[in-house]
Amino acid sequence: MLTAFACLAAIAHLPQDHSSVIKGMSDRGLSDLGAFAMLHELTTQIGPRLSGSPGADRAVAWTERVMIRAGLTNVRLVPCMVPKWVRGDREFAAMSVGERKLALNVCALGGSVGTPSGGVEAEVIEVHSLAEAEALGDRGKGKIVFFNRGFDPRLQSTGAGYGSSVDQRGSGASAAAKSGAVAVLVRSMTLAMDDEPHTGAMRYSSDQRIPAAALGIQSAEKLSAALQNGPVKVRLELNCQNFPDVPSASVVGEIVGSEKPGEVIVLGGHLDSWDLGQGAHDDGAGIVHAIEALRIINVLGLKPKRTIRAVAFMNEENGLRGGTSYAEMAKNSADRHYAAIESDAGGFMPRAFGVTETKHAKVSKWVPYLEQFGIDRFDKGGGGADIGPLEPLGTVLFGLVPDNQRYFDYHHSRNDTIDKVHPRELEFGAIAMAALAWLISEEGLE
Amino acid sequence: MLTAFACLAAIAHLPQDHSSVIKGMSDRGLSDLGAFAMLHELTTQIGPRLSGSPGADRAVAWTERVMIRAGLTNVRLVPCMVPKWVRGDREFAAMSVGERKLALNVCALGGSVGTPSGGVEAEVIEVHSLAEAEALGDRGKGKIVFFNRGFDPRLQSTGAGYGSSVDQRGSGASAAAKSGAVAVLVRSMTLAMDDEPHTGAMRYSSDQRIPAAALGIQSAEKLSAALQNGPVKVRLELNCQNFPDVPSASVVGEIVGSEKPGEVIVLGGHLDSWDLGQGAHDDGAGIVHAIEALRIINVLGLKPKRTIRAVAFMNEENGLRGGTSYAEMAKNSADRHYAAIESDAGGFMPRAFGVTETKHAKVSKWVPYLEQFGIDRFDKGGGGADIGPLEPLGTVLFGLVPDNQRYFDYHHSRNDTIDKVHPRELEFGAIAMAALAWLISEEGLE
Repeated sequence: MLTAFACLAAIAHLPQDHSSVIKGMSDRGLSDLGAFAMLHELTTQIGPRLSGSPGADRAVAWTERVMIRAGLTNVRLVPCMVPKWVRGDREFAAMSVGERKLALNVCALGGSVGTPSGGVEAEVIEVHSLAEAEALGDRGKGKIVFFNRGFDPRLQSTGAGYGSSVDQRGSGASAAAKSGAVAVLVRSMTLAMDDEPHTGAMRYSSDQRIPAAALGIQSAEKLSAALQNGPVKVRLELNCQNFPDVPSASVVGEIVGSEKPGEVIVLGGHLDSWDLGQGAHDDGAGIVHAIEALRIINVLGLKPKRTIRAVAFMNEENGLRGGTSYAEMAKNSADRHYAAIESDAGGFMPRAFGVTETKHAKVSKWVPYLEQFGIDRFDKGGGGADIGPLEPLGTVLFGLVPDNQRYFDYHHSRNDTIDKVHPRELEFGAIAMAALAWLISEEGLE
Repeated sequence: MLTAFACLAAIAHLPQDHSSVIKGMSDRGLSDLGAFAMLHELTTQIGPRLSGSPGADRAVAWTERVMIRAGLTNVRLVPCMVPKWVRGDREFAAMSVGERKLALNVCALGGSVGTPSGGVEAEVIEVHSLAEAEALGDRGKGKIVFFNRGFDPRLQSTGAGYGSSVDQRGSGASAAAKSGAVAVLVRSMTLAMDDEPHTGAMRYSSDQRIPAAALGIQSAEKLSAALQNGPVKVRLELNCQNFPDVPSASVVGEIVGSEKPGEVIVLGGHLDSWDLGQGAHDDGAGIVHAIEALRIINVLGLKPKRTIRAVAFMNEENGLRGGTSYAEMAKNSADRHYAAIESDAGGFMPRAFGVTETKHAKVSKWVPYLEQFGIDRFDKGGGGADIGPLEPLGTVLFGLVPDNQRYFDYHHSRNDTIDKVHPRELEFGAIAMAALAWLISEEGLE
């Protein structure tokens, strides 16, 4: 296989003008809209695919098929053990203000224990930070602690808003448990003013494991308003459960480099999703960005000097086992992981790539090739959760930065579905990744 | 009033750091999301507002009220006469292939004459350009000519796709009439693969006035596929009518400049919309961009040196009477129209401003103030349809350039509704216009 590639490469490697190559990528991508066709399959035929679920198993098999269909070679699995958490079939919350009862929209946070059978009922106390929860002391005893600090809307980047609020979701339960709370409710991590609860990972830092659920924004607002007028009780019922780890895998496929096959450029996203919605933007978009980028390179008959590899990482959401096991494999491999580009911020119109700071000046010269796809700049600081573990190997890390205003409207909720994805916006991400991979492959990063 | 402003201005005009002023604008805008609140009112309480319709009259009154509510002064009308075209209550098309009949989704193009009572039925001939229609000769006689050239999907800008196809909509009827056609059907001006027909202006260049309708994309595809297999007849019924011009008006309101009140910076969009949908992106967004920009400046107590004026132009869609009558008024006014910024490309995330080429170098230095709102660059060539007539007065013209991938999915169709507008994306446009108006006002363009 390598020999055949090498022969073809000798013919193909007449000097090439990157502009015309990249124009060809753009024409092909925008004509085919291959990323959307793949994402439509993944979201509607496979659907949600939380690590350890039957959906995740089907997604692994689907990815192998799609990589082969896209003409990738060496399609294979990189196995890993993953956590298995199951939501269960009933989630319920209602608040009682005097005689009145009002249902609240909730969903368990990923990793949470369930409530005792029949649920837990307690008075609610509202806080706005982990520190405030930890300082409750006796006032928290026997209570349901309600974390209600929203994103600061003045932050122009919604990712910054998320970053400044998500500690409540991740660590709120353990912070509240220190004061003897019996459960926590967390305002959903979104600026959307609907009432869809947004799940996401939480973890316990001690053995005091209390149930944790996200509240839809309208439910959070109602609960907060009711608390202004006096005591409010909430009854919460969650039937989620943690099980022992189960085997799973990341999926890998590639175009073998014609001159430096041992220097690998990874394009990746994560294959697992939360169990609500379809994981369309998070991170089906990243998966199809990577595969479509390679499909475009392949269908144009381009022969990159370096190996360009698509990786569909398993278990980004609640364990990062795919990213860590891949890096472990990479460490023990004869291949050099030359660069990695992650897409895990949705299928919106591209705006930038982040890049490892030491390579910022070098790659910024490539902006003229990329600005037609919305990439006006490189930001200092690249990478992503799944490719982060490659950093100690000297891999140069890139992250696709799409427009982010709508991302957290859908993120981790039932609203993360294919109808929220625009076929052309999605495709531009794939084309931009193909173009960047090509430039890295042909020009190098030295 | 001017005296009071001048006094306050003396206090306010300590040297100001533009960065902190613009940060204040951003904080205020993103906290209030005032543009979306206004646009929600306009789209749901007023709805469609084609020139000469009762909706347009209500929209004029609404704009006066909203400008006053936003604290603008000198709120007033600039009258103009506008065309009056009414769609009528029934539009229908069906194709017959042998014995089979299949309904097609159509809508009359704006300005079209209706069909004779009971409709017109004829064989269809498909063409892809005006030249092809004109060259039909006898083959076109008695036929319905079907213009089916879509946007080239390889064009990265959907505006470029539109620009290269829209001649079929504007001039197709007159081109086909030269060959004796009895009606035209035009593929909708969109890349969306749904079946919503998109209306828009057409005009007759001769007295041979034949009916003209847009076809939804799926209907166009079906018709084209049927034509591959042999002759197809279509029956088309349109009940639209043209009436004599009626009086209407553009709406103006402002913040009077503290130092140079006679130098006016116009921020504008168009108040009229097509009669389908709600005119949310086209161009309710532009109206609320302008008013919200002035509201933000006002609520922060800022006192610009130059007059900043919001103009809601009437009749951009089918006559440009608001833009031309405003320019006529401007020509006869003692005020100097110093600059004008138009927003008529939707309420999506900003990407750039276009600017009159001679000022490109000057204003490009302001990018660092604007890139936080998505404005990474100024493009050479500014303006827009409504402010274009100010150019002979020496006015420097700017145009807001939002991301354009989704615009033509909704444009001129029933899908141009408020649910397609993102509150934060919309607000960023208003903040960017407020910031640019402020910089022009304080720094000048010399």
